[in-house]
Amino acid sequence: MERVLNFSAGPSTLPVEVLEKASDDMVNYRGSGMSVMEMSHRSAEYEAIQEDAKASLRSLLSLDDDHDVLFLQGGASLQFTMIPMNLLSKDDSASYVISGSWAKKAHKEAALLRPVEILASSEDDGFSYFPKISVDEMAKDSKYLYVCANNTIYGTRLSPERMNALDTTVVADMSSNILSEVYDVNKLGLAFAGAQKNLGPSGVTVVILKKDLLVNEKGTLPTMLDYRTHIEKDSKFNTPPCYSIYICGLVLDWVKRMGGVEAMEARNKEKAKLLYDTIDNSGLYKNVIPEEDRSLTNVVFVTGSKELDAEFVKGAKEKGIVNIKGHRSVGGMRASIYNAMDIEGVEALVDYMKEFERNNG
Amino acid sequence: MERVLNFSAGPSTLPVEVLEKASDDMVNYRGSGMSVMEMSHRSAEYEAIQEDAKASLRSLLSLDDDHDVLFLQGGASLQFTMIPMNLLSKDDSASYVISGSWAKKAHKEAALLRPVEILASSEDDGFSYFPKISVDEMAKDSKYLYVCANNTIYGTRLSPERMNALDTTVVADMSSNILSEVYDVNKLGLAFAGAQKNLGPSGVTVVILKKDLLVNEKGTLPTMLDYRTHIEKDSKFNTPPCYSIYICGLVLDWVKRMGGVEAMEARNKEKAKLLYDTIDNSGLYKNVIPEEDRSLTNVVFVTGSKELDAEFVKGAKEKGIVNIKGHRSVGGMRASIYNAMDIEGVEALVDYMKEFERNNG
Repeated sequence: MERVLNFSAGPSTLPVEVLEKASDDMVNYRGSGMSVMEMSHRSAEYEAIQEDAKASLRSLLSLDDDHDVLFLQGGASLQFTMIPMNLLSKDDSASYVISGSWAKKAHKEAALLRPVEILASSEDDGFSYFPKISVDEMAKDSKYLYVCANNTIYGTRLSPERMNALDTTVVADMSSNILSEVYDVNKLGLAFAGAQKNLGPSGVTVVILKKDLLVNEKGTLPTMLDYRTHIEKDSKFNTPPCYSIYICGLVLDWVKRMGGVEAMEARNKEKAKLLYDTIDNSGLYKNVIPEEDRSLTNVVFVTGSKELDAEFVKGAKEKGIVNIKGHRSVGGMRASIYNAMDIEGVEALVDYMKEFERNNG
Repeated sequence: MERVLNFSAGPSTLPVEVLEKASDDMVNYRGSGMSVMEMSHRSAEYEAIQEDAKASLRSLLSLDDDHDVLFLQGGASLQFTMIPMNLLSKDDSASYVISGSWAKKAHKEAALLRPVEILASSEDDGFSYFPKISVDEMAKDSKYLYVCANNTIYGTRLSPERMNALDTTVVADMSSNILSEVYDVNKLGLAFAGAQKNLGPSGVTVVILKKDLLVNEKGTLPTMLDYRTHIEKDSKFNTPPCYSIYICGLVLDWVKRMGGVEAMEARNKEKAKLLYDTIDNSGLYKNVIPEEDRSLTNVVFVTGSKELDAEFVKGAKEKGIVNIKGHRSVGGMRASIYNAMDIEGVEALVDYMKEFERNNG
């Protein structure tokens, strides 16, 4: 059987050449006589793999020397706790923008630990747009502004122009759009991304941070929850998720070969335009997100009929177009089109959308 | 080039048939049209993989219904914090047995959070034996006894007979000997194991626990650090380290095909005996661990000369015997012979040891 067109929101499709390389290297990595999974994380061979992955990410994001890059475990969800724990003293506040359920979860975890505030929210409108952010309205003792840069469930995002213009210390969850568009990550205090959308498999989370933001004395936080530990030990305080990092490295190499983030952004805009144009020119499909807030990586749409949505999803599967169902909390359809989804895949989806509309118009 | 004989302490060698299967399945898992890495963790296909891995582990350890099995991230090191956080109220104590540097680290993390005690230690003797444990001497308000069941660096372990006889709530780090010998895990309050020695690749940690030991009210701990979260969500609160769990499942299937833990124990005893006999019958190699404390999974030895140790390691590498160098804190040699190392591999090492002794006796 052939490979399917996988529009999953995450874990999600990976470049097939990455998978083929991983398959070839599985039993004996480059003549080392062992798999990457079997390597001591203190071996020169493994250290080169992790070092290369980090260097690729630094280069793709043009990171400056003020920012450290960490490979951690626990997903974005553990970052929701580590961020306030490391960036806020006991009475410090921070300002959260609630643009979707992941930002809401991040705020909930921070509020367990520190007196943080909600600066803006689009929850009352079903998260159907990205909230307007007024940095001037942040509480005086607020140490950072927290945003989730892209909302997979609702198909909204904070555009690079607006994110880059935020004149304060920004902490950004970039799990679903890191390397998708050119954001100026050097302007951020901290950015993080679970790998399983744009970087590789699940099980590793990239954290990029300015270490001068850390407020705790060394040795006061649990060691594994202290960013200093991982900065000092170069993400090898304990055994890292080596194989996941190796796959991320292969994906990053692929992004470089494809022309880097600028090329990815151009391709992603073309992919998103194909879908949004199809939706906007259709009498059947709807997407109500304001144009500047529309995600490039997660395109949501509905027919307006639950039965028709279900038929759409079923018919898609028969054509090898899978994981196109919207999140259970919002229904409808969602096409997640991260970097590894190519234009041909999106064209196949668009063809099916048009055919489905002809048959059900 | 052929595969090497990899005696690494972790990450460590895996059964070659597991790697071959992973390689075959990489681009298209069982006709699904995608890699396991690309599967939504909410998909039926992935859920079956995780369910099967859990069922295999439960069956291999003959676990009763009082014990839950979790697949978490962060390694054993994060468990050092989660255990006291979840099992101890603010003023509760717990009793730690310091049998090596990992137990020492576990105690350090617990002591950051709670007033825990050291019940026994062999630190003053360079961790050259496993400390004697008197449960009667535990502090009155001590809620659990913490042991590291096997000490990879020093080559000591707490035998199943002595562990099973401990008449109190035991918390055991079994990272380096889970499934190596028949321990009665049902007698334990909590057991945990980083996967990268006996279970699979790094990036996933198995936690087996009795949930009636949890002392916190729900919603008071950070969500990701609360065992209840992962019990209630069956280790899918957020995206699990799916691929690492998949490989663990393949390894567990392999253990079942090999005859289960009893068969592994028999094979491991045979492997360890080959090495200890070679050492004890030699005029060159020494191992000073008392016999009942000797590890079945990590066999340490020295020649007494640093130069000769270095020559041994170098000569081994030329024969494809790698990662045989002792931990930097103790020097000498260490052969880690977890389940996936076969008897032929140990025999090749023994042959080399004898040859080296003849040439350097």
